[in-house]
Amino acid sequence: MRLIKSPSLINKELKKRRIKGQGIGFVPTMGALHEGHLSLIRQARRDNDIVVVSIFVNPKQFGPKEDLKKYPRPLSKDLKLCRKEGVDFVFFPKNEDIYPGGFSTYVNVEGLDKFLCAKSRPGHFRGVTTIVAKLLNIIAPDVLYLGQKDIQQAVILQRMVKDLNIPVKVKVMPIVRSKDGLALSSRNAYLNHKERRDALVLSQALKLAVFFINNGASDAKRIILRMRQLIEKRQSVRIDYVEIVDPVTLKPLKKVAGSFLIVLAVWVGKTRLIDNFLRK
Amino acid sequence: MRLIKSPSLINKELKKRRIKGQGIGFVPTMGALHEGHLSLIRQARRDNDIVVVSIFVNPKQFGPKEDLKKYPRPLSKDLKLCRKEGVDFVFFPKNEDIYPGGFSTYVNVEGLDKFLCAKSRPGHFRGVTTIVAKLLNIIAPDVLYLGQKDIQQAVILQRMVKDLNIPVKVKVMPIVRSKDGLALSSRNAYLNHKERRDALVLSQALKLAVFFINNGASDAKRIILRMRQLIEKRQSVRIDYVEIVDPVTLKPLKKVAGSFLIVLAVWVGKTRLIDNFLRK
Repeated sequence: MRLIKSPSLINKELKKRRIKGQGIGFVPTMGALHEGHLSLIRQARRDNDIVVVSIFVNPKQFGPKEDLKKYPRPLSKDLKLCRKEGVDFVFFPKNEDIYPGGFSTYVNVEGLDKFLCAKSRPGHFRGVTTIVAKLLNIIAPDVLYLGQKDIQQAVILQRMVKDLNIPVKVKVMPIVRSKDGLALSSRNAYLNHKERRDALVLSQALKLAVFFINNGASDAKRIILRMRQLIEKRQSVRIDYVEIVDPVTLKPLKKVAGSFLIVLAVWVGKTRLIDNFLRK
Repeated sequence: MRLIKSPSLINKELKKRRIKGQGIGFVPTMGALHEGHLSLIRQARRDNDIVVVSIFVNPKQFGPKEDLKKYPRPLSKDLKLCRKEGVDFVFFPKNEDIYPGGFSTYVNVEGLDKFLCAKSRPGHFRGVTTIVAKLLNIIAPDVLYLGQKDIQQAVILQRMVKDLNIPVKVKVMPIVRSKDGLALSSRNAYLNHKERRDALVLSQALKLAVFFINNGASDAKRIILRMRQLIEKRQSVRIDYVEIVDPVTLKPLKKVAGSFLIVLAVWVGKTRLIDNFLRK
């Protein structure tokens, strides 16, 4: 496994492999790798000749009051995990090589970046689309692996790839959960014992909604109300949003039928957690 | 020479050439080719194994009151010229294949798209950066050829290529002029006999400024004033802007020394013309 910091160097190294006809799978991450990331890496390992993982805590996707500084950065543990999973290249760039002085170009997926998480995280998706557009140019992979956990991100990036004719296939991998149902997230590390227990309410609310829908409920407003009631029983939590939306446009659905996406974001103490359920 | 309309087909065809190690030069145009375009095509022909010219009148870079409908589209003449210059591929996509339903991703070079032409053409450069980002993904050339005539466009696209790590070299080719000094433009076709004569004032004003600067003038304000006075003598013209700016940041200069860019946009009748002089 090679650890490369320079964008131009990794671009050159991967070009050599591409000329030989080797296929490249790419997993972009902010590090603090957990089983969710590993499921992406394992799929990339199965599908491709070369697996590239990037580790970059992208400042452009954090708001001024968000957790950029305290975001976990366990680099040596991350590298050990990558080595164990048979990763070929870890790309670990410096901030100043990604955003040098005078940087001023941004990619915007308009519309989709107005809903859901975008409301409480203005500028977040602009940061995500911009860094991923850059990484796709640097790495030039055949396949990009994303997690369904960050579903809005996945929807927006799929739209970007299509709209800008970026020559990459996108695979969205299922959410990985703890045994008790909590969706894995690097931010779970912020939770104390009580908060960790209260955080279960996200997956429980999703299960409740799916139970209702499987038993014939279709009125989105009523299903959402039941979810909110369940969540609000916990004292340490505060709802950011609970919505049932179209999986492609992210616009709210009135009637739940066919394909749908239930999404929620909830503050547990000072930690904002997200989860979702997708029926295609 | 092959004429290809489908984005995915031309992408596939060029991939074959790339695998063989052939270098690709790309000249994006809106058609209505003149000697300015041909100078780009000829340079591309000298530098590369494969030359690709795109012809696409990009609606996203026209304002609602601009000349999208009447913009000249002499396709068979354009194709004849391309064949004569030894072009290998002409990419002539349909609007609906470039901007299919649901299209919503835009590339913005922030800051640089606030100055000069951007003031009277809001959204224009967003349209330019978005289409060129798309074309660069579809064609994946080694070298992109741009004309200095559209200098703000060239500055913005160079910034975009750098910022988004797009793996392409950019060559900006000098302005081609008629014998009497008028910079070639597809929009010159709109001018009547009198307007054609009045349009000479753009290059004359640039010459005047360069004369002053070569003879020691350095106060931008005064140089600009002299240019404006010269231009305003013509009754059929109306100044949009006359500025002397930094060639990288496009910010106005107070003192003209070292490298500078003189830029102007002038309405001649109902036709808006631009011209510039660059000292590196």
